Amino acid sequence: MKITPVKGTNDYLPAQAELRDYLQKTICETYENCGFQRIFTPILEDIENLDKSEGGENLNLIFKVMKRGEKLNKAIATGQPDQIADMGLRYDLTLPLSRYYANNKASLPNPFKVIQIDKVYRAERPQKGRLREFMQCDIDILGSKSSVCEIELIFTTAKALLNIGIDNFKIKINDKRVLKDILLTTGFKEEELDSVCISFDKLNKIQAEGVARELTEKGFDAKVIADFMELVGNAPFSLDYVKTISNNKEYIESLENIIDVSNRLAGGKYSVEYDMTLVRGQGYYTGTVFEIESLDFNSSIAGGGRYDNLIGKFGKEQVPAVGFSIGFERIFSILMERQSGLMEKPKKVVVLYDENQVEEAIMRAEELRGEYSTALYVKPKKLGKFLNKLEEQGYDGFQILGRDEDVRFFEG
Amino acid sequence: MKITPVKGTNDYLPAQAELRDYLQKTICETYENCGFQRIFTPILEDIENLDKSEGGENLNLIFKVMKRGEKLNKAIATGQPDQIADMGLRYDLTLPLSRYYANNKASLPNPFKVIQIDKVYRAERPQKGRLREFMQCDIDILGSKSSVCEIELIFTTAKALLNIGIDNFKIKINDKRVLKDILLTTGFKEEELDSVCISFDKLNKIQAEGVARELTEKGFDAKVIADFMELVGNAPFSLDYVKTISNNKEYIESLENIIDVSNRLAGGKYSVEYDMTLVRGQGYYTGTVFEIESLDFNSSIAGGGRYDNLIGKFGKEQVPAVGFSIGFERIFSILMERQSGLMEKPKKVVVLYDENQVEEAIMRAEELRGEYSTALYVKPKKLGKFLNKLEEQGYDGFQILGRDEDVRFFEG
Repeated sequence: MKITPVKGTNDYLPAQAELRDYLQKTICETYENCGFQRIFTPILEDIENLDKSEGGENLNLIFKVMKRGEKLNKAIATGQPDQIADMGLRYDLTLPLSRYYANNKASLPNPFKVIQIDKVYRAERPQKGRLREFMQCDIDILGSKSSVCEIELIFTTAKALLNIGIDNFKIKINDKRVLKDILLTTGFKEEELDSVCISFDKLNKIQAEGVARELTEKGFDAKVIADFMELVGNAPFSLDYVKTISNNKEYIESLENIIDVSNRLAGGKYSVEYDMTLVRGQGYYTGTVFEIESLDFNSSIAGGGRYDNLIGKFGKEQVPAVGFSIGFERIFSILMERQSGLMEKPKKVVVLYDENQVEEAIMRAEELRGEYSTALYVKPKKLGKFLNKLEEQGYDGFQILGRDEDVRFFEG
Repeated sequence: MKITPVKGTNDYLPAQAELRDYLQKTICETYENCGFQRIFTPILEDIENLDKSEGGENLNLIFKVMKRGEKLNKAIATGQPDQIADMGLRYDLTLPLSRYYANNKASLPNPFKVIQIDKVYRAERPQKGRLREFMQCDIDILGSKSSVCEIELIFTTAKALLNIGIDNFKIKINDKRVLKDILLTTGFKEEELDSVCISFDKLNKIQAEGVARELTEKGFDAKVIADFMELVGNAPFSLDYVKTISNNKEYIESLENIIDVSNRLAGGKYSVEYDMTLVRGQGYYTGTVFEIESLDFNSSIAGGGRYDNLIGKFGKEQVPAVGFSIGFERIFSILMERQSGLMEKPKKVVVLYDENQVEEAIMRAEELRGEYSTALYVKPKKLGKFLNKLEEQGYDGFQILGRDEDVRFFEG
């Protein structure tokens, strides 16, 4: 029997599990306090729903679940791999949310403010060190086009981060409609925009020269590429400057408003800034996109955007939607490294010398449990060594029921 | 695209999700307060670990995950179904716990008191109305043979049930070693005992006549069967009576002690009773077995027992273990039916007439959030209808930011 967990998955030790629980609980309570409602969907989804979804690269990373019984035998007889599975493990929480909304719309408030904190699965190549089972942590607002949603999502997500002890971050925001308008005025054609965005999204990875090279390889006009790269070279720049090169007043003003209100609500705890280079990979974003960057860790810790054309795929009508997702696993590993002592609640132990004292020991533990977590242990052979080990685990008070009914209590 | 969840799984609406969250949280907090520690294991396990495990009937219910890429093509080419999967979804939490303990023993306390609250998967036939994805909720103590463990597990599990509002239950307990000793004195042979236990476990389903018939079909001695069934007919009987027909003083006295101490600790809130007819299906139980029966719902709501030979399968040495599992899904459906009003925390809403009021609206909501969950909504066309719907959802206070900056507040 193999004793290690399967590749790309983790066993979590008690201290790790406690931190994961604490993070989930604090984030979820923050969201609920702000009027969002949690739902649960299955990790198993119909294989056709997954295969037909807008997952981009993720469609190649689906864990597929085999049919069973006679259906399996028939499928194998066809020799076609795509006949063998009837279900798969979800690769994100957005596809299940779209299906859920179509299935349950009549029972849900409109707009629907929803929390999803749950596991997703991707068959990443293990050598890249990526997890194959990981937690996603999303809030979404379905059914409203108002930019009030963006303001609320930014405020609420930042609040959740602050509540779990993450600060020193900035929030970058862009609007793909504004970006596309800039691309148009630079000289790209309407039908080229999506392809340009895909290359431009790699700016941080391959730098400006890399993007220019990729756009050239794609065969775009050299003059247009040069003009665009000059513009990019001047970034960061303000929305006031964008107004001078773009005519798309409506979305620029909306972005300005989101940024101004969000910064005032931030009260100096973080800043919200326009970033014309922000694209976000997912093809389904249709408007605003945003990302939170930790300045301590120089890394993205949350991201999201508006996707007005996705939810409708399951139903008869389009449903505008916007969401923000916290990078749970990134934050978990940051906080594990930081060893912030967040978890150090006082814990006590009652040790009994004699198994016949169990009743008295439980009664004494129950008294302590009004105030502390309190564990019960039968005295092992080496008491001193045992108590030392408990102290390492964070226990700071020991009550010993002695052989002769004496009770000793000492703080560690 | 299919909008319903896959067969045997559920979409949980916000009110259902809130109850599930509350149950998990309350049970977990009770366990942690009593010194148990939560862990997490992956839902994916190596297919060989699953196939070789002691899952009995559950081995036929494993969801298998297909290999990927070139390995999949090679597997399909063999035409052998058992080559196609390399992983599977866990069917319980005991197998992952055994693997986890072998993998992490050096980092864990001894004895290890562990909490597992997590999802498991079984390919049950959907027409039976059984869930294919469901929650299990276990505490286990690994590394101790002491009956202090049984007393603690019974006390702690009962406390968790009381804390979530379940009362009026009784706890039945037996010891398979005592039961087997009774079977021996009745005339069955050592090598027949497991087979007799399997039939006897069906007593509640097929009654005494059914058990007798099955034992007869299995070819056991008619006189022995008749003697045994006469004994069963006289149940319930006391451990004092068992002493007159069995020589196994050690385990009988241990059972007596567990029952006496547990009843005194129960303080009249529930009773713990010897039940010679209790077997529990799982073949891996080696000693005590116990079950909690709801007297309100005439149904088993928790079960467990001692399994001293299972954990060791992954390691070099045997590790004694005992566990107790709450029937989470049974309790969830009981409480959903009862509509106990457990969840009715006061919730408020701030409604804004004009999107430009978003900043003021969020500030006002934040004031309320010190005390209440508070949602924010932009006024829809029909305000009265909208407020009625919110009231149905449990909101009991509304703050309306009016068109002319007036603020109205009223309780629903």
